[in-house]
Amino acid sequence: MTDISREPVTEIPPPTSTRPNAFSPDVALAERLFDELRARTGSERGITRASYGLGEQIAHDIVRREALRLGMECELDAGANLTMTMRGQQRGPALFLGSHLDSVPLGGNYDGAAGVLVGLAVVSGYRAARIVPPHDITILAIRAEESTWFPASYIGSRAAFGELTAEELDRTERAGDGLRLGAAIDAAGGDSAVLRRGEAQLGRERVGLFIETHIEQAPVLVDEEKPLGIVTGIRGSFRHRHAACVGSYAHSGATPRASRQDAALAVAQLIVRLDEAWTRLEDAGHDLTVTFGQIATDPNEAAFSKVAGSVTFSADFRSQSLATLDLMRAELAAAVADIAKARAVRFELGPETSSQPALMDTGIMSGLKDIAAELGIPALVMPCGAGHDAAVFARNGIPTGMIFVRNRNGSHNPDEAMEIADFAEAARLLSAFCLRDLPAAP
Amino acid sequence: MTDISREPVTEIPPPTSTRPNAFSPDVALAERLFDELRARTGSERGITRASYGLGEQIAHDIVRREALRLGMECELDAGANLTMTMRGQQRGPALFLGSHLDSVPLGGNYDGAAGVLVGLAVVSGYRAARIVPPHDITILAIRAEESTWFPASYIGSRAAFGELTAEELDRTERAGDGLRLGAAIDAAGGDSAVLRRGEAQLGRERVGLFIETHIEQAPVLVDEEKPLGIVTGIRGSFRHRHAACVGSYAHSGATPRASRQDAALAVAQLIVRLDEAWTRLEDAGHDLTVTFGQIATDPNEAAFSKVAGSVTFSADFRSQSLATLDLMRAELAAAVADIAKARAVRFELGPETSSQPALMDTGIMSGLKDIAAELGIPALVMPCGAGHDAAVFARNGIPTGMIFVRNRNGSHNPDEAMEIADFAEAARLLSAFCLRDLPAAP
Repeated sequence: MTDISREPVTEIPPPTSTRPNAFSPDVALAERLFDELRARTGSERGITRASYGLGEQIAHDIVRREALRLGMECELDAGANLTMTMRGQQRGPALFLGSHLDSVPLGGNYDGAAGVLVGLAVVSGYRAARIVPPHDITILAIRAEESTWFPASYIGSRAAFGELTAEELDRTERAGDGLRLGAAIDAAGGDSAVLRRGEAQLGRERVGLFIETHIEQAPVLVDEEKPLGIVTGIRGSFRHRHAACVGSYAHSGATPRASRQDAALAVAQLIVRLDEAWTRLEDAGHDLTVTFGQIATDPNEAAFSKVAGSVTFSADFRSQSLATLDLMRAELAAAVADIAKARAVRFELGPETSSQPALMDTGIMSGLKDIAAELGIPALVMPCGAGHDAAVFARNGIPTGMIFVRNRNGSHNPDEAMEIADFAEAARLLSAFCLRDLPAAP
Repeated sequence: MTDISREPVTEIPPPTSTRPNAFSPDVALAERLFDELRARTGSERGITRASYGLGEQIAHDIVRREALRLGMECELDAGANLTMTMRGQQRGPALFLGSHLDSVPLGGNYDGAAGVLVGLAVVSGYRAARIVPPHDITILAIRAEESTWFPASYIGSRAAFGELTAEELDRTERAGDGLRLGAAIDAAGGDSAVLRRGEAQLGRERVGLFIETHIEQAPVLVDEEKPLGIVTGIRGSFRHRHAACVGSYAHSGATPRASRQDAALAVAQLIVRLDEAWTRLEDAGHDLTVTFGQIATDPNEAAFSKVAGSVTFSADFRSQSLATLDLMRAELAAAVADIAKARAVRFELGPETSSQPALMDTGIMSGLKDIAAELGIPALVMPCGAGHDAAVFARNGIPTGMIFVRNRNGSHNPDEAMEIADFAEAARLLSAFCLRDLPAAP
């Protein structure tokens, strides 16, 4: 660990007492920091904070400066993730709050950053109210969550758990400048040699629990008119990113039905059939999404007057349950076989990529629910369909929770629209939650 | 008309008698001309005979040279179509045989040319057998049938019937060099001033009947193992070349079923539903094809991890019956309305373009059928799904027929594969048919 807490700190009076019901999070601080982030990492067209790049570093510098002002201890781990710790009444495992600080190119200001700034709002609120929490509280600013920069998932949190491989460090190149991942980590103050040895930086003995606060990337909370979501689990997935159906080009007006090998019709049938399977499984209580996000005939060869001889497409299946994903794998295989036979076409699904589902800790979920009810904060208990660093923590045996903040217009675009009032509810919920005892170590 | 028959002609003895059952068409001549066409208008990658351009002109020059050698009278009309007439026993309306001589870029050698060369084979056979047909036989080499060059349909045959508009002549530009249609026609020896006045060059008083011989553009005759087809009618069509479905982009893993506005699923449902309508109508005896030849999500915005917010597609419906096309229009409208409502998407079908069906003359059809049976030529009675110049003749009240010649690998590509033996059967069928009396003028 690199100790980077030697910078001068604005003097703040030390806390003198704990008053659990007499404080409020410092939402104004978070608001100022959101503004500063936008001003320093944004352009007219959106926010850009490249993984291990300039914008992400600016964001790290901003939150570290504030953490030091709040008297927190700051350290970088070998993956260049930043930990900012407020000392509690007892040493031992800390309560971790955090998320990532990078963004997609021309993205929004809240995806990731909200989960770090909410921690600063909580800690600053405690400081102002002179509350000393029962345990350490560590805010974690995670690196490189957005896989648009380096084509690998959860780089920062996987680095923290010693999961990055030497091959990833050596071969993975950043979009745009081609910098290798290992070199980028070292340039940001990390230590790729440690990562190469597979040494975990974090473990259950250090992390009592982890909560990631994140803007919702879908409009469920908007539709349900609730400011917060309490996440039950992060969906796993399997995907065919580059699938194809091969038929035969033929004259549209001259080729009878029976002679056709129509790839467009075959793929349309596949989409409709798997949508029917989704309906059926959802009605039976399964958690699932089914998405064919890309579909295209060949722009050079297809014509309105030709039967389509080739269609490429993508297929994405997500669920909190591995068993449900297996059911859909079987549905896909059966549909492809049936349609290939009926339409005299050939499907080439290409490689499957997949990710594991991650269930959130039931104790954390019920704690968050209880406090939300006490404080009168409307919160929806809901699954999370997108991947988040929290999945890595859950997979590594850390009791993990996630809070969603209502957000319009989705994420990964400049139009993300989180209301600061909703963010304030998340800070209020966490301010109360973080004073509870940590779960016992196993 | 321009008389271009003044060139020196190889001396051939004049015909002295009619011997309807003792002749055979000069298939060897056609074979030599196919070879010459390929050598002079082809490249390693395919055949290119641009409308009113070099390759088409070479083809016209070749067939005119042969017609003159056969003692035929050659004229150009105002559209630069070439008529080549063998005098019969009586003057009056002639029996017209013909097709076009242009090709798509890098196309095949037979699409169009077969229908002109078959006429030369018939006439040369008569000459050799000293047969004088009862009426004039005119071979028509039509210009500019392939709408890839000038974006307009049936330019040559419509010119012959006075149907080209001043706007088409002035505004339509050739792909590649941008030459205006009127200027191109004049450069090829036509007279756009006459066309501009809308004067018909052909009419029922000149054309006793018209038969277009053409390679089949689908594999029906290949599948049915028959060398020839006798066409019942040319399908009309209606099309939406640039249709779109607009939904809303959303996270694939985070957006629940009920919140989705999935354009890919909506278009897939549309395709499947109209395929079901096709099945139903075909089972009820309707002539129909339904084709969605192009479909695409936005390559810049779609992703495997996003619900598709936009899909463009084309839709092409063809039938010999206007009533069937109207039924499909209603099916399309109903499907679009239902799916838009169910999926919360919007369809923008864009402009509809259409063409009228053209029925072939029943007298010609039954004449061709009878002779094929007499001569032992297997022939399939079948609809024609592609547009052909014959449609223009039928629409103008000319008794019209079409003969298909079996062809592998479709057309509009260098792999067209017509067997000369099948072409010979068409020549044999026409050699017998062309000696029959013409239908009485109305």
